[in-house]
Amino acid sequence: MTDTTVQPLTRSPAWQALLRHRDSTGATDLLSLFRDNPDRAKEFRLETDRLVVDFSRQKISGETLSLLYELAEQQGVRSSIRDLVNGVRVNTTEDRPALHIALRSQAEHIVVDNGNIMDGVRDGLLAMANMVEAIHRGEIRGSTGKPFRTVINLGIGGSDLGPRLAVQALRPFRQSELDVRFVANIDYQDLQSNLAGADPQTTLFILASKSFTTLETLTNACSAIDWLQQGGCKNVFRHFIGVTANPGAAVDFGIMPDRVLEFGAWVGGRYSLWSTIGLPIALSVGMEYFIRMLAGARYMDEHFVETPLAENIPATLALIDIWNTNFLDAETLAVIPYDHGLSLLPDYLSQLMMESNGKNVTRSGTPVDCNTEMVIWGAAGTNSQHAFFQLLHQGTRNIPVEFLAGVNTNSGHPGHQLKLVANCLAQGEALMLGRNPVAGEPWRHFPGNRPSTTILYDRLTPYVLGQLLALYEHRTFVQACLWDINAFDQWGVELGKELAKVIIDELESGKVSEKHDPSTRQLLEHCLRSRNRTGPA
Amino acid sequence: MTDTTVQPLTRSPAWQALLRHRDSTGATDLLSLFRDNPDRAKEFRLETDRLVVDFSRQKISGETLSLLYELAEQQGVRSSIRDLVNGVRVNTTEDRPALHIALRSQAEHIVVDNGNIMDGVRDGLLAMANMVEAIHRGEIRGSTGKPFRTVINLGIGGSDLGPRLAVQALRPFRQSELDVRFVANIDYQDLQSNLAGADPQTTLFILASKSFTTLETLTNACSAIDWLQQGGCKNVFRHFIGVTANPGAAVDFGIMPDRVLEFGAWVGGRYSLWSTIGLPIALSVGMEYFIRMLAGARYMDEHFVETPLAENIPATLALIDIWNTNFLDAETLAVIPYDHGLSLLPDYLSQLMMESNGKNVTRSGTPVDCNTEMVIWGAAGTNSQHAFFQLLHQGTRNIPVEFLAGVNTNSGHPGHQLKLVANCLAQGEALMLGRNPVAGEPWRHFPGNRPSTTILYDRLTPYVLGQLLALYEHRTFVQACLWDINAFDQWGVELGKELAKVIIDELESGKVSEKHDPSTRQLLEHCLRSRNRTGPA
Repeated sequence: MTDTTVQPLTRSPAWQALLRHRDSTGATDLLSLFRDNPDRAKEFRLETDRLVVDFSRQKISGETLSLLYELAEQQGVRSSIRDLVNGVRVNTTEDRPALHIALRSQAEHIVVDNGNIMDGVRDGLLAMANMVEAIHRGEIRGSTGKPFRTVINLGIGGSDLGPRLAVQALRPFRQSELDVRFVANIDYQDLQSNLAGADPQTTLFILASKSFTTLETLTNACSAIDWLQQGGCKNVFRHFIGVTANPGAAVDFGIMPDRVLEFGAWVGGRYSLWSTIGLPIALSVGMEYFIRMLAGARYMDEHFVETPLAENIPATLALIDIWNTNFLDAETLAVIPYDHGLSLLPDYLSQLMMESNGKNVTRSGTPVDCNTEMVIWGAAGTNSQHAFFQLLHQGTRNIPVEFLAGVNTNSGHPGHQLKLVANCLAQGEALMLGRNPVAGEPWRHFPGNRPSTTILYDRLTPYVLGQLLALYEHRTFVQACLWDINAFDQWGVELGKELAKVIIDELESGKVSEKHDPSTRQLLEHCLRSRNRTGPA
Repeated sequence: MTDTTVQPLTRSPAWQALLRHRDSTGATDLLSLFRDNPDRAKEFRLETDRLVVDFSRQKISGETLSLLYELAEQQGVRSSIRDLVNGVRVNTTEDRPALHIALRSQAEHIVVDNGNIMDGVRDGLLAMANMVEAIHRGEIRGSTGKPFRTVINLGIGGSDLGPRLAVQALRPFRQSELDVRFVANIDYQDLQSNLAGADPQTTLFILASKSFTTLETLTNACSAIDWLQQGGCKNVFRHFIGVTANPGAAVDFGIMPDRVLEFGAWVGGRYSLWSTIGLPIALSVGMEYFIRMLAGARYMDEHFVETPLAENIPATLALIDIWNTNFLDAETLAVIPYDHGLSLLPDYLSQLMMESNGKNVTRSGTPVDCNTEMVIWGAAGTNSQHAFFQLLHQGTRNIPVEFLAGVNTNSGHPGHQLKLVANCLAQGEALMLGRNPVAGEPWRHFPGNRPSTTILYDRLTPYVLGQLLALYEHRTFVQACLWDINAFDQWGVELGKELAKVIIDELESGKVSEKHDPSTRQLLEHCLRSRNRTGPA
């Protein structure tokens, strides 16, 4: 597996050239870059039919970009993109392709294992469309004959964050009176607070789990069954739809076979909102808008595959990420959507990017010799201005910021929208310009020269959302190609799951093994001692 | 102002001793520390009447801690604590004390400017109690004579995050059928989605703004007034309560004088949930539980003031923060509450800690010569295990993790709770232990040796919540003392506000000034061009 003859990334020619470039340029002053090149704002900008991406406030010159594109060529980004879309088994450790692109493709054929997966993709969409229609029309009903009014998605991670984000973002496009909710946490408070106000007889649960073995989701499903039974529903499985890549397990669990929506094992969990995992989205906004979201993603797929690297938005933003993290030592990326509909975007991206690329071995199994993914964090503007922006402006750390904003609003209130957008632009300007200290008031000094990227879109529609999310997917993939890591596995979640099983048994039996480290043992013993010791409020 | 004779922190004896200690110790192996000291788990643990704080999985030895306590002595932490509680003007740049401790004190007298502020504190609590009772009993009603059923808090930053967190955390302690909601963002979608389902005639708005000049809050208040008027409410101010340190401005805005709840200018926004800003909390859980929350905070205040540094929980955790960030180069702290009720804790702490200590000048006005606050981020467990934990386990970065969990549940479902707590303990164990690679499967290697702190509490009650939040407030203050910065101002939000005003005018007039940098100008022109260009969905 391990090929020790491979040259470590940081000793490769393109990487070394970037290091020399950085060291010879010294500290980059953003305002000087603008002075040196009057066309900078225009040149360091890329567009699609709906997005404007301005990265002119990043600490890069034309030369930096050229060297970064050379790094991309050296790392074979172009052929990796071809491998991705052609269904090569790019997820080597799990020996399968990563074909989320197929879910929004209009290609006739994409072949995996001698089979055309596009048949399955079309079947999945059709099954989903039928299900959505039947639920919207009240043809599928609960066990007491009432149509559904509340939908609760039980899923976690990839089976939760994507649909949750999209349902919230596309709220202005709702086509149904269904109240769509999401429960992920194994903490019963999550289920409990989402059951509040719902009527068991008119509540439909979507049990979303790729493997159909997820502890949280199945535990919540069992408690949902209890709740349905206590609410007078006899045939509880009339209140369930299963969405999974393991339909056998869903049927074994009790899901009615004609209530199982399948998706392919070649869809990674955090890339699955385009599949039948997107059912809550389609139930909320209808199939037509769901398909518009796919169309937006497809636009970005085509852009990604067909555009030369130097005009390729996902590739360019990924290269800037590498520059910031590996050459300018940024540890985090702050994502600030000035769009309340995208409040969950930082959470969604923290999964997409950190689970994909928070890795420390290369595709050939050797240790990576540089940092990989940053911490992705953030919160909606303007809220975040009144929370942590103090640190972005006057803290001591190098934190690139990514702003997103819609020029126009779905809310029909242009007065609020104008102030919202103005704040977004002002923050990027303030971070770069800074301000000289007022005499005698050094605390009013803003150092400035802090980098940011701004993404503007006309209005947050299903199509625009599809473009944006596909942009981040491909950017994540290009990062992985540059670091030579597998973006599609997630072995890092395995160990915790195994150790949790042991501890669950111990908490149930009350017997703590000597094998634990002393801290874990002490905490466990405290838990056993304090059980039922709840004290006054 | 600037005293250039002050010795920079990093050249001070205690700091230098810590540097020598770090360099002589080399890379710290957590498991070796446990082997070297069989009592480590017990010794590196502190407790209150309700909390257990285990920091034995941090990369510190007894010697590290001794040297850190010496740093605290050198930086005068003890006298700074005395100054804080005695009402000294510790917020030097705004020339005022920071007396959030007074809000939960039972002292007869705390004197500021020759006046006893405890009279005001007691009056504030009494006014709040009367208001809560009058609303709960339906004595205060809307303009059409109906009692209130929905309460919407309009506030942002410090007037939002604290109450929002507490209302969610204490949901199991609700004493009222009032539906308490929060709107912060100037994006109209935030207000719009929270008005959905509310009846104007039974909706009460709390207008919470310390200065009563906050753009977002006043803009939302004006739109709320429109909504009330459209909903048939003639005397709209019967639907408002103002909470502010500037009662004159509230009355000028139109708030009825007997509907203004005041708090002192000596309460910082991000420390204000204990004041009348806590009204939404009291409306939700009742005054009795609100006062229990104050009692929990008071317990922590007394612990903080009276306990020697070596047993002082906030001080010890602050010193470990300094160790991690300034000596082990951690850039971020991941806060992971295994308690769905504390889902907002990472957001709350990112404000508390990053706005307080994201600073780059010392109290005497010289530049700090080391890093100050980290990026505070995170999300609730177990959700985060399925999102970004991959990076915590197998990424390349040093990220200390702070786990919090309640041994017992408020939800009455011990089965879920047991699995929740087990996952919390397992993650801390997995981060430390790691796992050797499986032969031929290098991607299954977990390096381990990753530090974490675990805070356990019996059950999340108002009292426990008060303790926890006060713990973080004091920890933040000790960090600031160590860095010699002012934790209580926030000048870093000023510049963005000023620049936003300019841009708001330009967007309204359609005229873009030449004074902007080319990127801002280009983005502004794009906004003007794309206005009303919303395209199809």
